Amino acid sequence: MRYVRVVVDGLDEEGNYGIIEGETIRIIKTSPLFSPCQETGIKIPFSAVRKFLPPVEPPNIIALGLNYREHARESDMKLPSAPVIFLKATTAITGHLSPIVLPNEAPDFVDYEAELVIVIKKKAKDITPEDASDYILGYTCGNDISARDCQLKLDRQWARAKSFDTFAPVGPWIETDINPDSLEIQSRVNGVIMQKSNTVDMIFSVSEIVSYLSRQMTLLPGTLIMTGTPSGVGFAKNPPIFLREGDTVEIEIEGIGILKNPVVRT
Amino acid sequence: MRYVRVVVDGLDEEGNYGIIEGETIRIIKTSPLFSPCQETGIKIPFSAVRKFLPPVEPPNIIALGLNYREHARESDMKLPSAPVIFLKATTAITGHLSPIVLPNEAPDFVDYEAELVIVIKKKAKDITPEDASDYILGYTCGNDISARDCQLKLDRQWARAKSFDTFAPVGPWIETDINPDSLEIQSRVNGVIMQKSNTVDMIFSVSEIVSYLSRQMTLLPGTLIMTGTPSGVGFAKNPPIFLREGDTVEIEIEGIGILKNPVVRT
Repeated sequence: MRYVRVVVDGLDEEGNYGIIEGETIRIIKTSPLFSPCQETGIKIPFSAVRKFLPPVEPPNIIALGLNYREHARESDMKLPSAPVIFLKATTAITGHLSPIVLPNEAPDFVDYEAELVIVIKKKAKDITPEDASDYILGYTCGNDISARDCQLKLDRQWARAKSFDTFAPVGPWIETDINPDSLEIQSRVNGVIMQKSNTVDMIFSVSEIVSYLSRQMTLLPGTLIMTGTPSGVGFAKNPPIFLREGDTVEIEIEGIGILKNPVVRT
Repeated sequence: MRYVRVVVDGLDEEGNYGIIEGETIRIIKTSPLFSPCQETGIKIPFSAVRKFLPPVEPPNIIALGLNYREHARESDMKLPSAPVIFLKATTAITGHLSPIVLPNEAPDFVDYEAELVIVIKKKAKDITPEDASDYILGYTCGNDISARDCQLKLDRQWARAKSFDTFAPVGPWIETDINPDSLEIQSRVNGVIMQKSNTVDMIFSVSEIVSYLSRQMTLLPGTLIMTGTPSGVGFAKNPPIFLREGDTVEIEIEGIGILKNPVVRT
């Protein structure tokens, strides 16, 4: 099943939840987090979508650093013995096709990071890896946008570097029926492949991540977990590559789809 | 004006917003963030409060490190040239008189931090220090509870150390009519004064903090900003003091009141 949240002419301007069926979207009354799904009887063609919204409104965006072996190496960091976790401000979220805005405060070293994103379905606290899948609604594509000057030089913590508005594109929808442990994952800038890996290279698997995090804090419905990025990020390339006005970034994950965002300056 | 959110027998079990008038609370229909205040006509005595809830449900909890000169020194850190910012998970929030739970994952080095907390009133983006007060609803007391082993030894980022459930007590209410720039601030453990300072010792003032943060990200209504803690935290004492089951922690700020929380283990 694929859950989407969209703005469509004539329906709720704040957004409408829907289920994708081929080339149409069946609009449902409330978020899929609050089941049972109530039908509205409304079906729209995909072409009627005016805007893709982030598929949920998360209470927290939790992210992992250094969760792919190759990326830990390119960042010159030791492999972690426990997940390296940080938070992105919930206000950083944006949807498929919406712009990534290079912030005035730090426009010059903005980098992409392709990530598989877990969407939590129900309140999770102290759960085992074996039970983790019961607490997951599905998966979407994410781009953990990072201002590398803030992250690596200016600041003592990563929070600001990762939390500028539009620095958490997610979408285009939530896919519920995939095995997260062996998915091809790729990022492209202007069509050129930058990162190409497979979630099988993750140091901590999706089940281990959800279990670990649920032992640290309560995961509420709609919580997004960005599971780390593979090697090939811009700052580690030689010469480094950073996002510029006019670029287009795509994150593609097997079985989910393509999250695409243009890059702009204000 | 003092805004409070409480559970009272016979009213909404999820919580009720109110305005304090002497020994009574005038219940209002919606959060003070969504003015104009609509009266319900209901007044209750203070003694009818069954539970104090956090006075808002924040979209983000932003916190500052090292914002008092003396605390930067005791932590052996250089004075920052810009605010040191980090995020606490919104799920860490708890209210006045609710327990601080020592987490199973890190129960032994849990520390208090008395902090003045700013409550944002309306959407703030790129505002000047001069305009900041227009965007502030008021102030409350906060305790930036921190597992020092996670923060200083085990983890690369502070997020986990600061985000265990119940690690962000705030309250007991929001005071709208004070000057935040010269308030006595104090923490006590079991009645013994641990921190005693004045917000005049802040490196970055409330106006500067709100302006700075609004240039990094959009501050939505209800955003909580914890403005840093003065010297006297437990880990810097000789010998160090950490919170133990059965302790009571109080944060008192002049003109606001006392935030009091017992410490428990699960």
